[in-house]
Amino acid sequence: MTASTFAVHTEDGIARFMRIRRQTLALCAGLGAEDLMVQSMPDASPGKWHLAHTTWFFEQFVLGYDPAYRSPHPAWHYLFNSYYESVGPMHARPQRGLLSRPALEEVRDYRSRIDEAVGELIARGLDAALADRIELGLQHEQQHQELLLTDLKHAFWSNPLRPVYRDTTAPASGSKSSPLHFLPGREGPVEIGHRDGSGFAYDNETPRHRTWLTAHLLANRLVTNSEYLAFVREGGYREASLWLSDGWATVQREGWQRPLYWQEDLSSEFTLAGIRELDPQAPVCHISYFEADAFARWAGARLPTEAEWEDAAADLPVKGNFQEAHHFHPIAPAHGEGLQQMYGDVWEWTASPYVNYPGFKPLPGALGEYNGKFMNGQWVLRGGSCATPHDHIRTSYRNFFPPHARWQFAGIRLGKDR
Amino acid sequence: MTASTFAVHTEDGIARFMRIRRQTLALCAGLGAEDLMVQSMPDASPGKWHLAHTTWFFEQFVLGYDPAYRSPHPAWHYLFNSYYESVGPMHARPQRGLLSRPALEEVRDYRSRIDEAVGELIARGLDAALADRIELGLQHEQQHQELLLTDLKHAFWSNPLRPVYRDTTAPASGSKSSPLHFLPGREGPVEIGHRDGSGFAYDNETPRHRTWLTAHLLANRLVTNSEYLAFVREGGYREASLWLSDGWATVQREGWQRPLYWQEDLSSEFTLAGIRELDPQAPVCHISYFEADAFARWAGARLPTEAEWEDAAADLPVKGNFQEAHHFHPIAPAHGEGLQQMYGDVWEWTASPYVNYPGFKPLPGALGEYNGKFMNGQWVLRGGSCATPHDHIRTSYRNFFPPHARWQFAGIRLGKDR
Amino acid sequence: MTASTFAVHTEDGIARFMRIRRQTLALCAGLGAEDLMVQSMPDASPGKWHLAHTTWFFEQFVLGYDPAYRSPHPAWHYLFNSYYESVGPMHARPQRGLLSRPALEEVRDYRSRIDEAVGELIARGLDAALADRIELGLQHEQQHQELLLTDLKHAFWSNPLRPVYRDTTAPASGSKSSPLHFLPGREGPVEIGHRDGSGFAYDNETPRHRTWLTAHLLANRLVTNSEYLAFVREGGYREASLWLSDGWATVQREGWQRPLYWQEDLSSEFTLAGIRELDPQAPVCHISYFEADAFARWAGARLPTEAEWEDAAADLPVKGNFQEAHHFHPIAPAHGEGLQQMYGDVWEWTASPYVNYPGFKPLPGALGEYNGKFMNGQWVLRGGSCATPHDHIRTSYRNFFPPHARWQFAGIRLGKDR
Amino acid sequence: MTASTFAVHTEDGIARFMRIRRQTLALCAGLGAEDLMVQSMPDASPGKWHLAHTTWFFEQFVLGYDPAYRSPHPAWHYLFNSYYESVGPMHARPQRGLLSRPALEEVRDYRSRIDEAVGELIARGLDAALADRIELGLQHEQQHQELLLTDLKHAFWSNPLRPVYRDTTAPASGSKSSPLHFLPGREGPVEIGHRDGSGFAYDNETPRHRTWLTAHLLANRLVTNSEYLAFVREGGYREASLWLSDGWATVQREGWQRPLYWQEDLSSEFTLAGIRELDPQAPVCHISYFEADAFARWAGARLPTEAEWEDAAADLPVKGNFQEAHHFHPIAPAHGEGLQQMYGDVWEWTASPYVNYPGFKPLPGALGEYNGKFMNGQWVLRGGSCATPHDHIRTSYRNFFPPHARWQFAGIRLGKDR
Repeated sequence: MTASTFAVHTEDGIARFMRIRRQTLALCAGLGAEDLMVQSMPDASPGKWHLAHTTWFFEQFVLGYDPAYRSPHPAWHYLFNSYYESVGPMHARPQRGLLSRPALEEVRDYRSRIDEAVGELIARGLDAALADRIELGLQHEQQHQELLLTDLKHAFWSNPLRPVYRDTTAPASGSKSSPLHFLPGREGPVEIGHRDGSGFAYDNETPRHRTWLTAHLLANRLVTNSEYLAFVREGGYREASLWLSDGWATVQREGWQRPLYWQEDLSSEFTLAGIRELDPQAPVCHISYFEADAFARWAGARLPTEAEWEDAAADLPVKGNFQEAHHFHPIAPAHGEGLQQMYGDVWEWTASPYVNYPGFKPLPGALGEYNGKFMNGQWVLRGGSCATPHDHIRTSYRNFFPPHARWQFAGIRLGKDR
Repeated sequence: MTASTFAVHTEDGIARFMRIRRQTLALCAGLGAEDLMVQSMPDASPGKWHLAHTTWFFEQFVLGYDPAYRSPHPAWHYLFNSYYESVGPMHARPQRGLLSRPALEEVRDYRSRIDEAVGELIARGLDAALADRIELGLQHEQQHQELLLTDLKHAFWSNPLRPVYRDTTAPASGSKSSPLHFLPGREGPVEIGHRDGSGFAYDNETPRHRTWLTAHLLANRLVTNSEYLAFVREGGYREASLWLSDGWATVQREGWQRPLYWQEDLSSEFTLAGIRELDPQAPVCHISYFEADAFARWAGARLPTEAEWEDAAADLPVKGNFQEAHHFHPIAPAHGEGLQQMYGDVWEWTASPYVNYPGFKPLPGALGEYNGKFMNGQWVLRGGSCATPHDHIRTSYRNFFPPHARWQFAGIRLGKDR
Repeated sequence: MTASTFAVHTEDGIARFMRIRRQTLALCAGLGAEDLMVQSMPDASPGKWHLAHTTWFFEQFVLGYDPAYRSPHPAWHYLFNSYYESVGPMHARPQRGLLSRPALEEVRDYRSRIDEAVGELIARGLDAALADRIELGLQHEQQHQELLLTDLKHAFWSNPLRPVYRDTTAPASGSKSSPLHFLPGREGPVEIGHRDGSGFAYDNETPRHRTWLTAHLLANRLVTNSEYLAFVREGGYREASLWLSDGWATVQREGWQRPLYWQEDLSSEFTLAGIRELDPQAPVCHISYFEADAFARWAGARLPTEAEWEDAAADLPVKGNFQEAHHFHPIAPAHGEGLQQMYGDVWEWTASPYVNYPGFKPLPGALGEYNGKFMNGQWVLRGGSCATPHDHIRTSYRNFFPPHARWQFAGIRLGKDR
Repeated sequence: MTASTFAVHTEDGIARFMRIRRQTLALCAGLGAEDLMVQSMPDASPGKWHLAHTTWFFEQFVLGYDPAYRSPHPAWHYLFNSYYESVGPMHARPQRGLLSRPALEEVRDYRSRIDEAVGELIARGLDAALADRIELGLQHEQQHQELLLTDLKHAFWSNPLRPVYRDTTAPASGSKSSPLHFLPGREGPVEIGHRDGSGFAYDNETPRHRTWLTAHLLANRLVTNSEYLAFVREGGYREASLWLSDGWATVQREGWQRPLYWQEDLSSEFTLAGIRELDPQAPVCHISYFEADAFARWAGARLPTEAEWEDAAADLPVKGNFQEAHHFHPIAPAHGEGLQQMYGDVWEWTASPYVNYPGFKPLPGALGEYNGKFMNGQWVLRGGSCATPHDHIRTSYRNFFPPHARWQFAGIRLGKDR
């Protein structure tokens, strides 16, 4: 979040605010209160919790910016604070699924009331600091839209009935996709990180800074299901030498044998549209860093670094299969020249641990807890996915997850030393 | 369940069936679908699961008795089988709270359809075996009514908002309750266990058999909150010598300092009517066997054996504070002569491990898993509680829980060697 | 321990004391300091710890009876107190294997010094209370002799080299052993428990009291390896309906498929003499209560109660395969009439949970922690084993272990309802 | 290990081999077989295991290079393989403390036999590949010398008697040490990594490559005990905002309140010479990455990156308080100009996650498992410690441990953005 460039954007402020807030509810259409209450693992949260927490975020950091503000539900502060230690203690994360109260209807009402209050605030005119916080709240809302989908997918998959979220039809992947080949990347000093004055960014994307790229190549497209299937069939999950030590221990302990949502038959997978046949041309998805890294080693390649990725992506338009396409699943690429699928479809695991950029300064106060305190034991992912809102992604965007996480829409682009 | 005495009872069969089934739903009045989905610990189940499982029980063991029967929801068999290994694999117990589907409405519809089918079966006339199974299903239903309440209490207590189930008013305990004193029990050979031909009983209450009572005394009433408070205040939870070794380890590990639902102030407790002041005359409740045993040792007494309890109770009418009183909480006793509160209010922990009676034969087939396979590591409780349906309890009734369990309405009657 | 009958026995007191103390060291002959330091699981202790703890017991309860006593090693009190909360805090049980200091030589020296001091005490003449405590110390020493052997067996089995303790040769089991048949037991009121004035007993064997036996049968001999092998081969470990619920969960979780020390080939086993062929006629050994109970169910029988066992055993001389035979393993029975192998070879799991006898009073003070506080979640075993000193066992002796314990020499005698 | 520069060094090959091997035994002088058997946590290994594993390494990778080689102890292969999956399965790491056999004497004999065989091999003349492997074995031996000390320290600390390893006297820190100040580092492109042809290096130090340093400062000396004490006293361990999220969770879960071996009084600490007073001028030690990072944040600074460290260290001679000084503890620095204590005393946590250098190629075959597979979830440490052999350390040396590890001699140098 770089203050100087911060604004309520090009559209009218209230309209943008309402559009993004409404989109979260739109994603819940067709889901019952029960569906929005499931927490299938500590890493995932119930949909209702996402609805409430994102609202709390506006209450805490926007409305609460006025010291005279009084919450309609002071007791909910404890429930819907996620991890901001500076603003007080919080409900234990693994227990979010126990909250039958407040009921979904109460949470929807809470959303309306807070939206109204924020709308009034915008209408009265904002100073820069408040505008920044509203923008941050909207970006935050969009992150939780994606999590709402990935968490729901895990919740539904945890139910032996395997419910369907949306009966979407993925476009048939016609002809064979482009053959995999490698394209050269830049060598020498480059700049990465968010460019001051070019719109919103999280603090962890700054400052823009110089780094040195060694000679390397990037694959023209994502790794497909059929390529990953070959790895599975040829014993990739049984060959220790392909894996990081922690990865091998995880494979053993968890009994991993294939991507998270693949069925045992290796020809179908669980999707938000229910069980579907695997599309051999579509990007492989729902794999961990450990799997991405082992696949790359098996393929005689490696993962790209985030600097290699960003430097290449900076030349491309931000286009791809995002949330708005309503596939909610990665799809086979169209034929094309150059780097395909850099944005959308699946988050791409990089070979870069998630750490601060040189000169990094977290936001002041509680908002400094947003990103900086997670800089340990996670890896950077780039490019957004089929669950990411299109206007949420940027070239410099750094997503991060621990190396065993599989429930995100995450896949593989290969890289190589030249 | 002793076949010869088994019947659909004195009332008209269908009416009795419908009355008990409807009572389960009546207990859910005022609760939302979300409330009925919470599973706050592996030992407790969501209300919706109780509604479905008890229905599955009739489907599996009554309707399914006809080999031509076809279930409307064959996929639900896996979800709502609790622990009957003989009839197939089952959904993992700790994951019952993840089932947003089937929705509550579908489960209510399922209940209706199965009730109708069973009603038709009864109307057509039953052979003895089927009548036995319906009776067992009804007894089973009543057990789950009690669990529905205790599990919901735990679920609501796990929510920091501490929701209220029913805003009941417990009768004020007027004057001081009867002073505690001890009454002599019988000595020598006695008979306990269910008497053949005297109505329904579970297999674990049979056969009626002889046992030998040594000289002993039983307390005239239950231990009260104020008596238990003295134990707490005088350091009962900090004195190792009062505790069984496993109990002391549990106290340390769990940080126990008072009964489960008491507040830290030692003057109020969480009830199904929300946070209420502790009634000093009411029976102490929601304690484990370990706590009951430690309290008894502190008081210079011991817990009664189940044979001592049953032999004494056999002389008394089955009367007390049961589910039908709608207190959903133990209450202070009226003044009275002889043994008070033997039935209702709280289950009384006994000094008897839960094992089979000599000559015990479990029911044949899958129903033999109902009771017999749990005869390890649990202790017998007697007398029913404020959550037990009145017509569910009997003198020979043997309830059982592990020694650390605290979420049941369980309390203490003291005994002594004479 | 019944005070009135308590004494330093028929032999000269000092000689008896020294004989038993020396026997503990004799069991360690041939073992190195490293062997005596292994702790292969929290339930087992290193040999060195047994040597020191038994010595501490005399120091604490005999020498320390004199308030003027000063220990040569006050810091060791914390290390070698096992579980006597009343005399102070103690080193965590699972960490006993971390004590390289004191070295074995120091512990041996400690034993000598304490033995000398106790010898002098006996030579000066004892009052009844001290004589009682010395006797208790000797009985305690003998219990730890057995544990030293069972713990060492587990330690050596945990080493992939499978070291040999003593290269003993078990007597060849010549002809086939007696066919299994059932003998009737007494019916009606009987007395069990230690008879006052008949020598030493632990507090948990008292008071002698009346109990009621129903009509029953007892098997003439122990269950053999070949009988148990049939259970294994016919799928006993895969059939849920044979098991208690906790037992089945344990089988699944631990992957049990055969007795603890049997090899995968089902024809050999690890013994204190190394890997040996299974003797088909020898008693099956190193099984848990869960396995004994499941086997009995499979065999259409049940386990005897401890009262049934004791009433039958009271008519028999205390003879059998004990520690002194130096087999350190159960052996095939000689042919014979009546009940065979009631004493020695293997501890016999009974169908009786370990609880107090009516009127039980633990020893006063810290020694009251010896037995009473373990009366939860364990089952009684009777008769002693090939690792028990002959003069340690009695008809009324009650051993107890949790239902999953397998590292003791424990086996099966069947019983039946008549 | 860069093949071209690899050799058996400047001294005569056999002499060097024998000197390093003997040094391992010299570190064990005064320790008994029991001391060398303790494993106080899964991360640490018994001394005897270190003695055997380093010998196995020579057997496996040097002697076993000859396919005709036959081991004197083939069964030990399984016991003393640490983590080389390619050469077969291995004994579980947390169970290394259970190996009473082979006895220490047998392991010493094993060392002699293997040393003799390797000596003969060297005497016969080596090809480059074998010379490389012997050099790697010696470097490996030296790493385990350090681990032997750190593991023994943890083992002795786990014993309530707190034994002394060596009664060394640390030099008194006379006057106050140099005031802390910051010195500028280079900015712009620099080269780091092992320079081809300059002697031995592990594969993870290669290839030498260019990286970009932003403007920064480095502290002239290590953080002292007295500086860290201020952090403790001012509530550093209670202030969430100072910590990484994983670090804060660890502080809570483990109850951390001070460095690992500090006593509760905050004025003394456990050392290899027993409990000693804290030297306020000596470097703080035995802290985790989490603590180093939190301290730096509290001090308004940050940790240096490994590139910043290496670029600065490259100008300095490799001198400092190493194993050969026999302090086995960090000491207060002499006064001096420029960067002090860059080598020796304590490993310095850097802000760099442990990942591969661009173009990294692991050694071929099983030896490729030496370093590369651990590139996840660990942080780089630089400079060696008081337990590192002097001739083992290099400017490009990269040590790595997980962020919670505290049992190594690890401390803090501060850095800053300029």
